[in-house]
Amino acid sequence: MKTITRRKFSGTLARGIGASAVAAHLPLACAMKNKQTSDKLGIALVGLGSYSTYQLAPALQDTEHCFLAGIVTGTPAKERTWANKYGIPQKNIYNYKNFDSIKDNQDIDVVYVVLPNSMHAEFSIRAAQAGKHVICEKPMAMNVAECDTIIKACDENGVKLGMGYRLHSEPYTQEVKRFVREKTFGDILYVSADAAYRSTGNPNQWRLNKKLSGGGALVNMGVYAIQSAIYSTGQNPISVSAQEYSTRPAYFKDTDETITAQFEFPSGAVANIMTSHNIRANRLYATCENGWFELDPASTYIPLAGRTSRGELNFKQESQQKLQMDDFGKHILFDGPNLAPGEMGRRDMVIVEAVYKSIREDGKKQKLNFETDYGFGG
Amino acid sequence: MKTITRRKFSGTLARGIGASAVAAHLPLACAMKNKQTSDKLGIALVGLGSYSTYQLAPALQDTEHCFLAGIVTGTPAKERTWANKYGIPQKNIYNYKNFDSIKDNQDIDVVYVVLPNSMHAEFSIRAAQAGKHVICEKPMAMNVAECDTIIKACDENGVKLGMGYRLHSEPYTQEVKRFVREKTFGDILYVSADAAYRSTGNPNQWRLNKKLSGGGALVNMGVYAIQSAIYSTGQNPISVSAQEYSTRPAYFKDTDETITAQFEFPSGAVANIMTSHNIRANRLYATCENGWFELDPASTYIPLAGRTSRGELNFKQESQQKLQMDDFGKHILFDGPNLAPGEMGRRDMVIVEAVYKSIREDGKKQKLNFETDYGFGG
Repeated sequence: MKTITRRKFSGTLARGIGASAVAAHLPLACAMKNKQTSDKLGIALVGLGSYSTYQLAPALQDTEHCFLAGIVTGTPAKERTWANKYGIPQKNIYNYKNFDSIKDNQDIDVVYVVLPNSMHAEFSIRAAQAGKHVICEKPMAMNVAECDTIIKACDENGVKLGMGYRLHSEPYTQEVKRFVREKTFGDILYVSADAAYRSTGNPNQWRLNKKLSGGGALVNMGVYAIQSAIYSTGQNPISVSAQEYSTRPAYFKDTDETITAQFEFPSGAVANIMTSHNIRANRLYATCENGWFELDPASTYIPLAGRTSRGELNFKQESQQKLQMDDFGKHILFDGPNLAPGEMGRRDMVIVEAVYKSIREDGKKQKLNFETDYGFGG
Repeated sequence: MKTITRRKFSGTLARGIGASAVAAHLPLACAMKNKQTSDKLGIALVGLGSYSTYQLAPALQDTEHCFLAGIVTGTPAKERTWANKYGIPQKNIYNYKNFDSIKDNQDIDVVYVVLPNSMHAEFSIRAAQAGKHVICEKPMAMNVAECDTIIKACDENGVKLGMGYRLHSEPYTQEVKRFVREKTFGDILYVSADAAYRSTGNPNQWRLNKKLSGGGALVNMGVYAIQSAIYSTGQNPISVSAQEYSTRPAYFKDTDETITAQFEFPSGAVANIMTSHNIRANRLYATCENGWFELDPASTYIPLAGRTSRGELNFKQESQQKLQMDDFGKHILFDGPNLAPGEMGRRDMVIVEAVYKSIREDGKKQKLNFETDYGFGG
């Protein structure tokens, strides 16, 4: 870890020095594909499901400011596989029980929580208490109260907290944010955003189990649609109305299948979103005073695409996760912006709760009142 | 008018013969650009505003089964202009007071009501009572009760009634209807439809005056979005929820500015629509079990465009109004289908009333119960 970090965050001072020292003397570290160097942060992935396996770990082979230093898994069989594949030393492998001892591991600077939603708060807090910076996957937690406990733990332990909102580091999304910031097409008047996929697999998967997920389509894909509505208007919503639909109750017996929601923004802009575990759609459309822009797909892992009333968008395609983790690394190492701070994750959970409340109240509009813009300009 | 008509509709027997006889002996008729012949229906436009001026009259120069035979206007200055431009004989020119004497005019087979909404019922009924077939512009009337009086008058007088829903004759829209009918992409799961334009002109125009229009964006562009939702699912909705937004109350002081609405269909499909007089958007997107299709623009007079998950759509561009009026002509002359019967216009007004009721009840879902599909297969 670079010395600049030591000056900025006293809490990481000891580890900063230690990590460099350890790297220089441990042969095992040299087996790591994306090698630990004095200016890279060591990341430990907590939860080795498909997102860690197929997105995050591969991306960490290409990151410039961080690398895959450790893993935390509840499945012993995965320990060897991952250790062999990525050259992870045994001392950097944890399970859920001995996880707290990670506080003594100088190789690990950041803990990335990629667990089922019900475990986000617990492991984010334990990571913070171990003095590690935290990246938390979306949705931030099961409810707003849990989000508050995560933010408090990170504050109290002097560690940084970022959401796994990879799109803020993605060039098409950043271009959308630029359109909004620079009023390229004038004021945004209306946003239509759909984020949905059709689930037909194992009905017992954790995403369809409310005790593990906290909700269905809304807390999963819906967060993308909420995010789309917000970064496409550059504002926090001041109200939300919502509706729920069910067509396959035998499959979606525990969680929401399809939800539509409408947002009002301070400028007068309106957003109309749909999220679903039964429908395939992944789109963002915004119409403005002097033109329009759209992304389709707008939030998939595969390359995004987009066009505007002035023509096609065409950006270099890179791993979104690589860009995201490097941006978080730059936040810690070089005091770069935190593109998706914990407060943003909490805000989205406030919105999620308001959506569910509107549905319980037969579509009644819910007022929202946020005090900060969480760095929309970033 | 062809003799086939005489056999089908006894009410038009005398006129059918008369029209042919008159045409053969009146020199003025020969000045008409799209000439009256024995197998073409004579249409009289009632209301010579911009839609008649720039869309319907030009289209009637190219129609195969009907022609511009007469005009009905409340503005005397327009009589000479139109008579000269289109070679309309003086005896085929009426004002709102002497309109009922059109019953004795053998040149006129169809009356096309293109007046402000508040005058639709009155002139549709007077046309029916004069024994003329009726095309009524959208929205059909000010409310469902008025729609009923129009339908009753046409029934009692043995005349045909069609809505001015030109898109049912338009090839991109017909392709969408084919996708639905043939399940080209499997079942339709979700439709997003926006029909809106940004009004910044004369705030005293009749469309913004509730006494003349009956409503704002919803009864104007919203009818397109409602239609889109229905023909993209091939079903009548079983419920609707709706929300209203206002950002320019000084301009839209009398009528709705922006409305979003959500529909449920018997199959489980969901539609999410937006209509506005403050926003520019004209789109139809449907996502299905095995693909998607979209039109953008979806309901403008300018050529439509579209694409699907299998590629671009590309149809010959013709005047939508020409196609529409010729289809209505074929309905009368050759017993072709009535692609947009009065009952369809009435259904849409039932939906409009339910949307306004949902808004008054803070978004509460309104049940809908329609008994027929109004020829969706057509």
